Amino acid sequence: MTGRDGGADIGPIGEHSPVVILVRPQLAENVGTTARAMANGGLFHLRLVAPRDGWPQERAWFASSGAHRILDAATVHETVADAVADLHRVMATCPRPRHIVKTVMTARGAASELRACANRKLRTGLLFGPERAGLDNEDMACADTLIRYPLNPDFMSLNLAQAVLIMAYEWWMACDETPTRDFMTNETHVATKGELENFLGHLTRDLDECGFLRNEQKRPGMIRNLRHLFQRGDVTEQELRTLHGVVTELSRGRKSRS
Amino acid sequence: MTGRDGGADIGPIGEHSPVVILVRPQLAENVGTTARAMANGGLFHLRLVAPRDGWPQERAWFASSGAHRILDAATVHETVADAVADLHRVMATCPRPRHIVKTVMTARGAASELRACANRKLRTGLLFGPERAGLDNEDMACADTLIRYPLNPDFMSLNLAQAVLIMAYEWWMACDETPTRDFMTNETHVATKGELENFLGHLTRDLDECGFLRNEQKRPGMIRNLRHLFQRGDVTEQELRTLHGVVTELSRGRKSRS
Repeated sequence: MTGRDGGADIGPIGEHSPVVILVRPQLAENVGTTARAMANGGLFHLRLVAPRDGWPQERAWFASSGAHRILDAATVHETVADAVADLHRVMATCPRPRHIVKTVMTARGAASELRACANRKLRTGLLFGPERAGLDNEDMACADTLIRYPLNPDFMSLNLAQAVLIMAYEWWMACDETPTRDFMTNETHVATKGELENFLGHLTRDLDECGFLRNEQKRPGMIRNLRHLFQRGDVTEQELRTLHGVVTELSRGRKSRS
Repeated sequence: MTGRDGGADIGPIGEHSPVVILVRPQLAENVGTTARAMANGGLFHLRLVAPRDGWPQERAWFASSGAHRILDAATVHETVADAVADLHRVMATCPRPRHIVKTVMTARGAASELRACANRKLRTGLLFGPERAGLDNEDMACADTLIRYPLNPDFMSLNLAQAVLIMAYEWWMACDETPTRDFMTNETHVATKGELENFLGHLTRDLDECGFLRNEQKRPGMIRNLRHLFQRGDVTEQELRTLHGVVTELSRGRKSRS
């Protein structure tokens, strides 16, 4: 399917990112949505073992939301053994492993291990089973590790693309450095304590003028409460300018009336 | 849609788990697949703001893979403000926040904060926008925090259910205690060092007998290499029994020939 037009620029292709291996996938649409989920998390190498309806299938490209490059480069293999022959580590996703003696990792643990393998320039692969049945025992014997997602044990049903998405997301997260909490500061910046104090001074003066703070005994506590309120969040410099305006205008109204 | 038959037992409903709020969802199927993704991660409370095609819609139940209880209990609201009125914290998912001054968290950071809120018995909500356009500026003004998923910046396209799945998965992971690496030991157990040593003794004796270790100078190094090999993985007691049999049978063949 090379030469097919269109598709999104899905970014740089990591040479040592894990290969996603779909074993006996049934619906071509699911191969397409898998490619989309892979692109989301920065996985680019796709192999298909004995796809039921043959390959290529137009429907896969339609379902991929533009992840064409992954589908264009996908390879087809007759057996799982053939699909994993050049890989150093192979992990198999498997919701309910039974009668198997093998290391089992969470998606997060597996992602971290796959990153470590990539750093050592080892080639790795992730096996995903057919839509209904999942991987059989022979398939799992081709893997060195099993992956089991922690999810609601009373409702584990995931479709193929969703199973791939969780691994792709964890692969991305395993070396993502986004701070867990940040502040949008394109147009402004968080106010300094001095800027905040400057506003609180303005507010206190006006409240003194209008008599709001006339109870001398309560005055320090009231000012402290206002200070606590404005200290609580990340007030921005822009918001402080607005607040200065609000106080000024409210005072002006009162002054013009009096 | 109460009284509708069927559907899976999706497990106990967390009273303080976040409410998922779909704002102006277009396709009923996407409401159904959202319910499925919620059940995967242990989210149970669904609210719909002005669903385009009205509510209820049979197609949602068909697409939910059995997550009927969530759809049965879903409520419909005219405005976002109405849908969040009883909540203490509201977070809005939003791929590309612009011109907005608000705290932005990753899905993982948000999940951890939502767990902390639940522990304080605060009611929380997660806003998800319509399929194509996403949340508008008015919607986002109803939230105190924005959530942005770290994903491949060159390919952020996620469908609604996938966006919900990632938050639901992180919500589940935020208090999941599955060890990142475990070992399937239903039928057997990891061998003790003594059991391993016992096997290595058996192997060494037979290798001495057959002359494999006859080079006295190399003998210690060869035995050490074999020991390293068997030490590397978690060899199980069952596997050691098999290995004992393998060594015994290989030796027997040689002995009977000689």
